[in-house]
Amino acid sequence: MILEVAEIDIHAGKASGFEEAMGQALTLLNSSKGFHGAKLFRSHEVNDRYRLLVTWDSIENHMVDWQKSDAFKTWRGLLQSYFAGTPSVEHMVLVHSLPEGE
Amino acid sequence: MILEVAEIDIHAGKASGFEEAMGQALTLLNSSKGFHGAKLFRSHEVNDRYRLLVTWDSIENHMVDWQKSDAFKTWRGLLQSYFAGTPSVEHMVLVHSLPEGE
Repeated sequence: MILEVAEIDIHAGKASGFEEAMGQALTLLNSSKGFHGAKLFRSHEVNDRYRLLVTWDSIENHMVDWQKSDAFKTWRGLLQSYFAGTPSVEHMVLVHSLPEGE
Repeated sequence: MILEVAEIDIHAGKASGFEEAMGQALTLLNSSKGFHGAKLFRSHEVNDRYRLLVTWDSIENHMVDWQKSDAFKTWRGLLQSYFAGTPSVEHMVLVHSLPEGE
């Protein structure tokens, strides 16, 4: 299982529009191959910063199956105008979990 | 619910020692007030980078109840020699979850 961590900075004053658009965009992930779940978080300390955490079976499911899909074009269309820059994306591999197995 | 996101860079060549120490350190969190769960991830793209994600009831549970505890001193003693710098810590507030409620 892979965790995608996307750090997203948006234009000032656009939080409510972005959060609404993201609510709609996230549903596009549902039918993507290898997708398990997603959570959008807003930073407490940094204004206009969000992190999107997505769990996938593999990096390929994110980088190929999702990012080369038509649904991803719709996703980008919904969200792109809110981004203050290109979101940074990293993939993480689980090492420890407490409680175990969760 | 609050997600603590700690970005941790460790000294090169110390991954296995760090991961073992973290396995021991994480158990110290179990009895901390407002603690729900923790996951340690290793970056796929950046050598010697980890992220620790911890869920708490509140920021105060992390910054006061945990960081002012004796258990936190033990935690720091177990891990500090592995850190290549001071870990950066941010708190995040959940906005959306898919599937809902998870």
